[in-house]
Amino acid sequence: MALSTEFTELFGIRHPIVLAPMGGSAGGALAAAVSSNGGLGMLGAAFGDREWLDREARIVASRTDQPWGVGFLTWGIDAAAVERALEYGPCAVMLSFGDPSPYVELVREAGAVLIIQVTDLEEARQAVDLGADVIVAQGTEAGGHGARRGRSTLPFVPVVVDLAASVPVPVLAAGGIADGRGLAAALALGAAGAMIGSRFQATTEALVDPAITKAIIEGRGEDTERSSVLDIARGSRWPSKYPARTLGHLYLDRWRGREAELVEDPQVREDYQADVARGVIPPLPVWAGEAVDLITDLPSAADLVTTLANQAEIALARAGRR
Amino acid sequence: MALSTEFTELFGIRHPIVLAPMGGSAGGALAAAVSSNGGLGMLGAAFGDREWLDREARIVASRTDQPWGVGFLTWGIDAAAVERALEYGPCAVMLSFGDPSPYVELVREAGAVLIIQVTDLEEARQAVDLGADVIVAQGTEAGGHGARRGRSTLPFVPVVVDLAASVPVPVLAAGGIADGRGLAAALALGAAGAMIGSRFQATTEALVDPAITKAIIEGRGEDTERSSVLDIARGSRWPSKYPARTLGHLYLDRWRGREAELVEDPQVREDYQADVARGVIPPLPVWAGEAVDLITDLPSAADLVTTLANQAEIALARAGRR
Repeated sequence: MALSTEFTELFGIRHPIVLAPMGGSAGGALAAAVSSNGGLGMLGAAFGDREWLDREARIVASRTDQPWGVGFLTWGIDAAAVERALEYGPCAVMLSFGDPSPYVELVREAGAVLIIQVTDLEEARQAVDLGADVIVAQGTEAGGHGARRGRSTLPFVPVVVDLAASVPVPVLAAGGIADGRGLAAALALGAAGAMIGSRFQATTEALVDPAITKAIIEGRGEDTERSSVLDIARGSRWPSKYPARTLGHLYLDRWRGREAELVEDPQVREDYQADVARGVIPPLPVWAGEAVDLITDLPSAADLVTTLANQAEIALARAGRR
Repeated sequence: MALSTEFTELFGIRHPIVLAPMGGSAGGALAAAVSSNGGLGMLGAAFGDREWLDREARIVASRTDQPWGVGFLTWGIDAAAVERALEYGPCAVMLSFGDPSPYVELVREAGAVLIIQVTDLEEARQAVDLGADVIVAQGTEAGGHGARRGRSTLPFVPVVVDLAASVPVPVLAAGGIADGRGLAAALALGAAGAMIGSRFQATTEALVDPAITKAIIEGRGEDTERSSVLDIARGSRWPSKYPARTLGHLYLDRWRGREAELVEDPQVREDYQADVARGVIPPLPVWAGEAVDLITDLPSAADLVTTLANQAEIALARAGRR
């Protein structure tokens, strides 16, 4: 029996599984694989780079006739980026990290489903007030960027679910979910589905350097850490409000707890680039969630969606039924 | 239909719900209420204070004929404390925070179930090696003391479950669980039950000052924080390896991030005691978990156990079944 929720009904899809729109790595092939196999694929359009978006949106649109969406990093975009994405006819637009209000009407007018990701209760209340169609409650376990004073997924999701129930708006759980048991737990908490990131990084369709895939497969949850150090060291524009969870890194060990000092030290940015050029450190941090322990293979995303759904059904059928 | 797991079978009890042995506040009346109503009540014997243990163990033993247990803070006890507790015939002894090996044989010889609480995978492996009968996987969401570099419950529990499956040993989830949805999620993750703390602090049977009960009922998850500051300021012997999650506090705001400096400043300990004496700060920090948002009333523990079990059954029945 398939898992059916308000979310699967909203999109008319088979599984309450959503690909997190990971900037750059969630491209057209990955999104199409997820959507074609019953989940909701989301392009990781990040800051709305035109070339990337044009290429990947064409790929997803040509490979699946199922619903798919596109996700942006709200603090770093403008209306033109959203408008351009909407031209490709996504069924959903997701806005994460920053004030979504300037883009709400654009999405609504295009008839796309508005998904807003939140990291605390204040953001959740704003999402409800703005009339989000779906709210993603992201816990601090999530890989990549998220809230500085993060809420954990297990206690955060039910509080957002209770808040959203007044409308009602379906809530997705994000952060710390990498197998069907995590999806089952999300549904048990009252979520209408799970948004999954790191697990999809290690799939054959992801736009990911093989060294990163390897690091994720070999990585351990206790080696992941949420920090602004790497963003500062690499000269990223990410606001310090949103540190990122990554695997261990030379610069993390060197600068942990000294972020203020690091900001004031322009030499470090030069050193960092020099270390990248010399191969001492990888070109990009390995963004990975705390559930990375559960990622030990490299399946196709197509197979993975089916596996996750089957595992979740089994987990729910067995829970408390010995 | 009742929730049945390896854990409920092991003890022959009705619900996979365990009272966390919160030092001092989980006394005989609370433990007896939980056990009498189908859960497993655990006395919070902390460092094994003789007077407290004698009094509360007599209470629990006189009020219930159902299984009950006792929990210790391993780093702060000696064998005599465990031996004394065993004289009262607990069905289970739980060891948390520190090396449990010196006490394993004592518990085993007495025929009690050995429960070991773990906060990372290294501790989980040790618990398996020592032959624990039950392993509690505690996430960083938990109120009170826990690991410095904490694992979150949602991604941590399934990894411990996989590790323990090789024996097999049943695993309980702890941290961030304050209603039946959290219990349902724990079961979906493969846990055989949930250990619940803060939620039982706000029950009529808990040995808790009314001001603390009020603070927990009014508290918000985002106001909780894991830190060593209050232990250092109040001159507690807790190892810095185990900071505690509490609600907000004047001394947290004053000393956050300056723990090393605080350790070197004996005047602060005097100031702290003076501030307690003057009523500026409460006598004890309010230890509370991140799920404190979900705690909004003051039921009896007896009623609460039934409510949690019913909520969990409903949550599992509804999950993915719209």
